[in-house]
Amino acid sequence: MPSPLTLHPDRALPAEPALRSVARTIYGQTRDLPLVCMHGHVEASVFADNAAFPDPAALLITPDHYVTRMLVSQGIAPEDLGVPRTDGGPVEQDGRAIWRRLCENWHLFRGTPSRYWLEHELVEVFGVDERPSAETADSLYAAVAARIAEPDFRPQQLLDRFRIELLSTTDPATSPLAEHARLAEQGLGERVVPTFRPDALVHLDGPDWQRDAKALGQLADVDTSRYDGFLEALRARRRAFVAAGGLATDHGHLTADTTPLDRAEATRIYDRAWSGQVTEPEAASFAAHMLHVMAGMSRDDGLVMQLHPGVLRNHHGDVFAAHGADKGFDIPVAAEFTRGLRPLLEDYGTDPRFRLILFTVDETVYSRELAPLAGVYPSVRLGAPWWFLDSPDGMRRFRELATETAGFYNTSGFVDDTRAFASIPARHDLSRRIDAGYLARLVAEHRLSEDEAVETAVDLAYRIPKQAYAPRA
Amino acid sequence: MPSPLTLHPDRALPAEPALRSVARTIYGQTRDLPLVCMHGHVEASVFADNAAFPDPAALLITPDHYVTRMLVSQGIAPEDLGVPRTDGGPVEQDGRAIWRRLCENWHLFRGTPSRYWLEHELVEVFGVDERPSAETADSLYAAVAARIAEPDFRPQQLLDRFRIELLSTTDPATSPLAEHARLAEQGLGERVVPTFRPDALVHLDGPDWQRDAKALGQLADVDTSRYDGFLEALRARRRAFVAAGGLATDHGHLTADTTPLDRAEATRIYDRAWSGQVTEPEAASFAAHMLHVMAGMSRDDGLVMQLHPGVLRNHHGDVFAAHGADKGFDIPVAAEFTRGLRPLLEDYGTDPRFRLILFTVDETVYSRELAPLAGVYPSVRLGAPWWFLDSPDGMRRFRELATETAGFYNTSGFVDDTRAFASIPARHDLSRRIDAGYLARLVAEHRLSEDEAVETAVDLAYRIPKQAYAPRA
Amino acid sequence: MPSPLTLHPDRALPAEPALRSVARTIYGQTRDLPLVCMHGHVEASVFADNAAFPDPAALLITPDHYVTRMLVSQGIAPEDLGVPRTDGGPVEQDGRAIWRRLCENWHLFRGTPSRYWLEHELVEVFGVDERPSAETADSLYAAVAARIAEPDFRPQQLLDRFRIELLSTTDPATSPLAEHARLAEQGLGERVVPTFRPDALVHLDGPDWQRDAKALGQLADVDTSRYDGFLEALRARRRAFVAAGGLATDHGHLTADTTPLDRAEATRIYDRAWSGQVTEPEAASFAAHMLHVMAGMSRDDGLVMQLHPGVLRNHHGDVFAAHGADKGFDIPVAAEFTRGLRPLLEDYGTDPRFRLILFTVDETVYSRELAPLAGVYPSVRLGAPWWFLDSPDGMRRFRELATETAGFYNTSGFVDDTRAFASIPARHDLSRRIDAGYLARLVAEHRLSEDEAVETAVDLAYRIPKQAYAPRA
Repeated sequence: MPSPLTLHPDRALPAEPALRSVARTIYGQTRDLPLVCMHGHVEASVFADNAAFPDPAALLITPDHYVTRMLVSQGIAPEDLGVPRTDGGPVEQDGRAIWRRLCENWHLFRGTPSRYWLEHELVEVFGVDERPSAETADSLYAAVAARIAEPDFRPQQLLDRFRIELLSTTDPATSPLAEHARLAEQGLGERVVPTFRPDALVHLDGPDWQRDAKALGQLADVDTSRYDGFLEALRARRRAFVAAGGLATDHGHLTADTTPLDRAEATRIYDRAWSGQVTEPEAASFAAHMLHVMAGMSRDDGLVMQLHPGVLRNHHGDVFAAHGADKGFDIPVAAEFTRGLRPLLEDYGTDPRFRLILFTVDETVYSRELAPLAGVYPSVRLGAPWWFLDSPDGMRRFRELATETAGFYNTSGFVDDTRAFASIPARHDLSRRIDAGYLARLVAEHRLSEDEAVETAVDLAYRIPKQAYAPRA
Repeated sequence: MPSPLTLHPDRALPAEPALRSVARTIYGQTRDLPLVCMHGHVEASVFADNAAFPDPAALLITPDHYVTRMLVSQGIAPEDLGVPRTDGGPVEQDGRAIWRRLCENWHLFRGTPSRYWLEHELVEVFGVDERPSAETADSLYAAVAARIAEPDFRPQQLLDRFRIELLSTTDPATSPLAEHARLAEQGLGERVVPTFRPDALVHLDGPDWQRDAKALGQLADVDTSRYDGFLEALRARRRAFVAAGGLATDHGHLTADTTPLDRAEATRIYDRAWSGQVTEPEAASFAAHMLHVMAGMSRDDGLVMQLHPGVLRNHHGDVFAAHGADKGFDIPVAAEFTRGLRPLLEDYGTDPRFRLILFTVDETVYSRELAPLAGVYPSVRLGAPWWFLDSPDGMRRFRELATETAGFYNTSGFVDDTRAFASIPARHDLSRRIDAGYLARLVAEHRLSEDEAVETAVDLAYRIPKQAYAPRA
Repeated sequence: MPSPLTLHPDRALPAEPALRSVARTIYGQTRDLPLVCMHGHVEASVFADNAAFPDPAALLITPDHYVTRMLVSQGIAPEDLGVPRTDGGPVEQDGRAIWRRLCENWHLFRGTPSRYWLEHELVEVFGVDERPSAETADSLYAAVAARIAEPDFRPQQLLDRFRIELLSTTDPATSPLAEHARLAEQGLGERVVPTFRPDALVHLDGPDWQRDAKALGQLADVDTSRYDGFLEALRARRRAFVAAGGLATDHGHLTADTTPLDRAEATRIYDRAWSGQVTEPEAASFAAHMLHVMAGMSRDDGLVMQLHPGVLRNHHGDVFAAHGADKGFDIPVAAEFTRGLRPLLEDYGTDPRFRLILFTVDETVYSRELAPLAGVYPSVRLGAPWWFLDSPDGMRRFRELATETAGFYNTSGFVDDTRAFASIPARHDLSRRIDAGYLARLVAEHRLSEDEAVETAVDLAYRIPKQAYAPRA
């Protein structure tokens, strides 16, 4: 009989007894701090509706590409995990069957953060104590299903239970922010805030670009068939996001190029896009230009700019055609920041009204580029380990590679990149444990005093993210 | 007087007592498992002839570029280590003198895997207990020479003694596989199998390309002066390798580019090569094309495809001219897989009949590209740390960088890249120790239970490599 | 009340008790060895004048871009730290105010090597025991000011006190070496020696290139308006550096490209530069060519060649215009050595008269390129972790990434890159501690015996750097 599923109080702390003891002390001072969640992917409607979550698979498996990709990697079809088809074709509807596929393949997740988070959720949030396996799949499913049917498991109730002080959703620039308006009516307008994500609008060769650009114009009541109107409409929407409590923008680009175009060239390319003739190089140079433009807008309206380049999206054409974006087939490429960001930083990098937070999935830039940039430019903060790197060893390497050049106070503190709402406490808790372990090593190696370590840990968990995303203008 | 040479039972396990205790338990369950050796460079004739090995230097030093390069790096000429000259010029013939050069420079190997393997061999295989040094060189030489003259030290006897269940040699596509036929006659046909290596045939600008292409045609009885015939001959030789027990192909390219050409362009370039006019860019695009073609052949005939790009061969022209290839002057370059493999993976990456195992000597791609690819594409497995990275810290970093994204079960398990036959047990043993140490840390940090860790260790050492290389078609 | 500032005797040694015990033994054998300082940035005039240092801020803060950049990164203006303006505009003159800015922001340095060095200096060199803070700023300032006014705190006296056996300054190729002549008169000519740095002369598109080239010609009494004369003048100045005790050259290039030009093309580009028409690509190819030329000169005159590519200097134009070079705004880029160095190594890499020491701020090349190159080419040594990487974890990673391929004896041993003279002992001490910790792990994992570890540590701290920089010709 397998041992029951439990969470050891010292999990993810260093194994060495002297380090663990110090780490436990440090972690004890951050464990119960409120959560600041500035980079999530939970829909605002989840909170505005405050409906019960659907079945366990729909809550924990199907929408979470961190989980589905691992099952796909061993030959399980996305359809068998309930992942919708773009053509509306049949996919598995039985949550219990999907859940069983996860439990039967639980060994695939050994050593991964997904397992760590899911175990945390199962024990702490759902109160179960069985290890997932073929044998336990059905009883686990029933237990979780019962739990999420309870009234105190509604999203707004979980906001309280999880001690979430502030949560940013991620919203396209063309969002009318209706859900956030509903949240404001419910008194949650300052607790659940939008993030302005203009990616679809600045990539002129996207399939739906013109549709989105027109939608932008309608929302802002500006003619976006001209470049000037496009910029004016963006400014207007940013003001709407600020009015709705928004604190940040979010930019996912293939590269960190920020080379500006002169107005004539930008207008020329924009016009070509409007007539459906833009080339890929033109679109790339316009996207780079728009990062520079958006930095200027951030300086003016105070929205903190988040940039995470370096991912080649939708690597497999057939999977993208069948299931759409965000299905685990986004693969990183080598990143370059030093040259790419130079034009933007020349103009805004020392401006106290501007704040840029940088994320990467290419660890090689931590010590080579990001820490040196964050370690000298007043406007730059180095974001937390993101996506694949938001993991125990990934976070540990981040501190080891970045701290000696950037210190702690040029980082953003912890920023989660959550897809599954119920994983938020697990992610923050893990981050606090890893930071405690890193700080404990500095203490044990006599490179930092314990009181400084505790203060730093509290800052990283709470104060620094609050400050990093505070309005600048 | 120096301490005797001994192998500590806990060598290469973590030093911290709590970790070491768990690691010892895990390692204890894998130590005696059979060896599966899918990527070696020992000649089939060694086993078919089953002759006694020549002198200690010829067994352990001269043919092993891992060892000779280190001595060369401190100014010892390759000739003085017995490395043959291409012009047949004189080189050191006295094995005892070569052996002494190694022993006198033993300090150069401190901290290297070559030292670890050689010490393992000296103690475990040759039964000596003196540390190599100028003083001990002659007595060590005599002891090893006596040992390899014994009847139970013949290659086939060592296969048993080393518990080698399966060993792949590496054979050019133009090999008539005569040695493997002899092995089959001796009942070893399923234990020592060939690997299909077509590199010389797909690089059209190689000095001997046309000679090899003609040899291929003769073996397959097909006219290889035409591109279609070339493909037909390759298919025929692959069938011959399958018939001889072959399980895999092996591809060493400068890059991972797999962009296919249309038939007309491939034919055009092939024709130019046949008339001796191919350019370097044409040859590079043809080599990339052939990776794509070979993936299709692997899907059809079930040979597992191994790819290890990113090494600039024969970096120093004079050394290459004087001594030929594989003399330690092969230097890695930055690798790129995400874009390079995309064409191949678009077509075959989700096909259950296809299996691709990826190796690298650029560690930066572990977390950035290879783990994300292996963590979603069903056809992809992430190979073991290769060449320079097949080392204690190299293997440890591999697990730390790959596991959190790819898990354990999207890796290939241990695959050695042996040049020196006698080093095979040492290499597998070291790998099992390092994996035990990594798993022990997960246990000690309460990220994995001990029973799961043991099961995973056994899988990595034995079951996963067997499955990874099992026929797919 | 905060705890007093003390230096723990075991600081920066591994925390695990068994490792620490071995590390302490190893470190005990290197702690008091003399210092060999081959790559510093302290001016020769400091020693020739032997004047008292000015105030604490001018000694420890203002000239040290390691320190100022961190304060700038949090919004403190360079002017407020006393950093001179190129236009002669006003900057903070009050050392006490500058010192207070450091102390008030002491938390920014947590986890950085600057903090480690400064604490070492405060306790060991200045004899204070208060932690820097707003409260202690003034008393610390007074204590340090009093200390540096004492006669035994003059630079030459500190050479003795710091046990500096040999110190290289860094001098432009156009330096008349007058300060070194004064040092020779004072009997310090073999203890404080110049390093030949020709960067300004080989980058034809530098703003002051022609001025420098003319100065070179005047010093050498050669007409440098012609390329041949330029080379002749360089050779002459190198001879003067050799005569003044110089042991090495130092080359900071954007890339490691060493492709030679034929004489006609080099002459053509040189002539264009002389007439002020050189393009950026021409200048880049000439700079690469000159690395090849300089390698030949090193082979002939025995000066050891140091190369550290991969930094994009003066990233922020306005800061450069306002304050000049070396103000913390130099940001690394990805480095490439395998292809870049190939032309140079083809010609000189196996020549016993030539020695090349390679530095990087891109850690990815340690295991991928630099260790494989140093691990086979007799002329190549892998330099110590440089600049941002000269840090506890940076040095630890260096050993972990380089040793298994290059061993210890193909590295240069410790080479400091000091800006602040008083930090030299701290830097060497830290390096000895980190190497002791790494070696202790090898001992504790039974990969090295303790007597070998001690011998290796002594070699790395003292013998290897002495040998690496010994004259070759």
